[in-house]
Amino acid sequence: MSDMTTRFADIVGAHNLLIGDAIPDDYSHDEELTHPPQKPAYLAKPSSAEEVARLLETAAANKVPVTARGSGTGLSGAAIPRADGLLISFERMNKVLEVDTVNQVAVVQPGVTLTELDAATADCGLRYMVHPGELSSSVGGNVGTNAGGMNAVKYGIARHNVVGLQAVLPTGEIIRTGGKIAKVSTGYDLTQLIVGSEGTLALATEVIVKLHPRLDHSATVLAPFADFDQVMAAVPIVVASGLGPYILEYIDNMTMAALVHTQNLELGIPDSVRDSCQAYLVVGLESRTADRLDEDVERAGELLAELGAADAYVLEGASARKLIEAREKAFWTAKAMGADDIIDTVVPRGAMPKFLAGARDLAGAAGGGAVGCGHAGDGNVHLAIFCKEPAARKKLMTDIFALAMELGGAISGEHGLGRAKTPYFLELEDPVNVDLMRRIKQSFDPAGILNPDVLFG
Amino acid sequence: MSDMTTRFADIVGAHNLLIGDAIPDDYSHDEELTHPPQKPAYLAKPSSAEEVARLLETAAANKVPVTARGSGTGLSGAAIPRADGLLISFERMNKVLEVDTVNQVAVVQPGVTLTELDAATADCGLRYMVHPGELSSSVGGNVGTNAGGMNAVKYGIARHNVVGLQAVLPTGEIIRTGGKIAKVSTGYDLTQLIVGSEGTLALATEVIVKLHPRLDHSATVLAPFADFDQVMAAVPIVVASGLGPYILEYIDNMTMAALVHTQNLELGIPDSVRDSCQAYLVVGLESRTADRLDEDVERAGELLAELGAADAYVLEGASARKLIEAREKAFWTAKAMGADDIIDTVVPRGAMPKFLAGARDLAGAAGGGAVGCGHAGDGNVHLAIFCKEPAARKKLMTDIFALAMELGGAISGEHGLGRAKTPYFLELEDPVNVDLMRRIKQSFDPAGILNPDVLFG
Repeated sequence: MSDMTTRFADIVGAHNLLIGDAIPDDYSHDEELTHPPQKPAYLAKPSSAEEVARLLETAAANKVPVTARGSGTGLSGAAIPRADGLLISFERMNKVLEVDTVNQVAVVQPGVTLTELDAATADCGLRYMVHPGELSSSVGGNVGTNAGGMNAVKYGIARHNVVGLQAVLPTGEIIRTGGKIAKVSTGYDLTQLIVGSEGTLALATEVIVKLHPRLDHSATVLAPFADFDQVMAAVPIVVASGLGPYILEYIDNMTMAALVHTQNLELGIPDSVRDSCQAYLVVGLESRTADRLDEDVERAGELLAELGAADAYVLEGASARKLIEAREKAFWTAKAMGADDIIDTVVPRGAMPKFLAGARDLAGAAGGGAVGCGHAGDGNVHLAIFCKEPAARKKLMTDIFALAMELGGAISGEHGLGRAKTPYFLELEDPVNVDLMRRIKQSFDPAGILNPDVLFG
Repeated sequence: MSDMTTRFADIVGAHNLLIGDAIPDDYSHDEELTHPPQKPAYLAKPSSAEEVARLLETAAANKVPVTARGSGTGLSGAAIPRADGLLISFERMNKVLEVDTVNQVAVVQPGVTLTELDAATADCGLRYMVHPGELSSSVGGNVGTNAGGMNAVKYGIARHNVVGLQAVLPTGEIIRTGGKIAKVSTGYDLTQLIVGSEGTLALATEVIVKLHPRLDHSATVLAPFADFDQVMAAVPIVVASGLGPYILEYIDNMTMAALVHTQNLELGIPDSVRDSCQAYLVVGLESRTADRLDEDVERAGELLAELGAADAYVLEGASARKLIEAREKAFWTAKAMGADDIIDTVVPRGAMPKFLAGARDLAGAAGGGAVGCGHAGDGNVHLAIFCKEPAARKKLMTDIFALAMELGGAISGEHGLGRAKTPYFLELEDPVNVDLMRRIKQSFDPAGILNPDVLFG
């Protein structure tokens, strides 16, 4: 047993520190498609902030690289450890510490999954509204990637729903940031700096998240459009309508066909409509009262017709749920279709038509394909990239990201850069910004131990 | 003419660089109550990001401290210059560059005032929803302090409404952060780090702000309560009700009396009710349709009655507007009443009763007083502090801030620390956090030229 093994085992207890073959394969990857799995030298499962602090202090003193892992559902490889590194899994720090209905927040440990948090808040009529597709994802992972998901168009992303943290710095110091408070203007916002930092600045050991009232009445309107550009033109108008949709997604016809096939969806859309339409808009509406919901659904139907929809189908109960769940599983569908990589680029809402047309042209010219769906209300485009040859694919993806940035967008809207997108970031981002971020990184992590392959490579 | 004067004048033009007695008194202060005015050595009025960059580069090379100034309406002294320093006024960078209705954002220069931005967006039915009391404040100032105001309970604070920046680093480099995008997970969120940094990290030279649909129908419900604690207990219930108020304020009876008196308010409240009530709740409601507004107003009235309100007065048109304007002028009323200082502490919503009772007890024990109003929905308490003797007042304020922090709150919810609150921050904040912030500061500003008396002193 090596010296480091003994030290880490002393901190978390021998049965919570695994090495070598004792580490299950699961810990060697997340759900990113292209990066080879990699087992860490050490896997530690701490049970408290204090243990995390001692792990980081020990790792820093010995220059052992450290990667944090929530549920391992990330899509960009931010949880893939180093071969010589320590992987810290938060699976034992999985308690909902408090559901505070007066301040409408929950205080949770990072290993809590969204399913667990949803169950813990169901009885009090409140809900954590960040819903990335995968509900087995952890709140700590949501913090790391600044997770988004379908409800972001109304409720915002993780950044807007995380109001406070307990976090451990790579120096082993434990800090608290923010709190159960709606606003603060007292020094730099460390909470917001740590959210989305993909485990490179500090590790969250407690997260305070906002809860919103669960509205009792909801419906989903599905509108097929003959023309792709009509869908895109409709989006800002639906956003500006005041209807306040909590879901506003587009799904292209190829992806819808795949979803219908792989998820056995019954949408009640005649073949003739389906065959003649290029894309679908999915509009989720919710309300405090059934009457208002009915009114809003009717108004949405009228508005979509004015905007050129071939029809508008109101899905209720099980069929609405199935469509939303199928959309949440779009990544798995893309994987099943044999996608070679995925992107989750964000552009200004109004630039989506240009971006999508450009991305398809680039993919076509590269002899590949780019199909998908996306959080249309947020300009967040999810594309499955089909292009077998690695060098051609890398060039294609670089070109697509460059196009997004030219249009005022960014490489990732919600998955984060991880190991997968960091090379593109370093190639395309303004070096002045990268250098500034590198100095910020050093101000947190002078030893450079936290996720060293992510953001800076 | 000194060497520095020549260099700065070469950058902005001789008539945009003032020194000595040519600098008007206005530039020696903001609206903070306690700090003595201080004229800068140089006042520069740049017209572009490039000029700001050259000013900062020159200042850094010569270790000249730099303070930024928007409209000078700040309440914590963040715009008070150094005697040996350069004050950069953004008054000439006051253009609304773009109102983008498709992406629902405006791109503005930092010197644009809220009144100007409101006028520029009125025709398109959209609106920037950050409304600190003073509408002559500038968007750049909003960025610096992370401004809040009454609408934050529904629309969030500056942090939630600023989605992108062009900013000049104190090294003279110009960066762009964020964009016309709703979400991003591509490296550290530099936008959010600069928002609320009070001119200590970088100077914003262009700001992209979110716009929201202007809803056509609004009403204000004013509810007097016999008992202060009832008001506080009502707040989380109104927030959780799903009514979605865009204003949720409390006003204590002393402050209401002063507002009525100084602003000539006619609220139609009988003397008997007024005399027997300790505080008021102001609930602003808005809706897409007149019918829904009527329903919501009725439901709010019922709810407030259930929660113990003595009555509920629906204010319409001019009288509603006058009450809101009077509340916005609460600072001026406090000043007119002879307040010795003001605080804008934030605490968890549910901790307001305990905090306010504690603050009043502390003020009483110090032979002074603490009265006020606040953004109840946000737990953001504005108190006018009456305590003449400086040492006693400093101790009282330290004790009040310590109490807020004990309850999970922070020193400032929206005014920022400025010169006024920095000493309290340095005394009370966890030194690990302060040291981390200091290192972040150094990563932006190695020469330490930007607002050196703010945050770190």
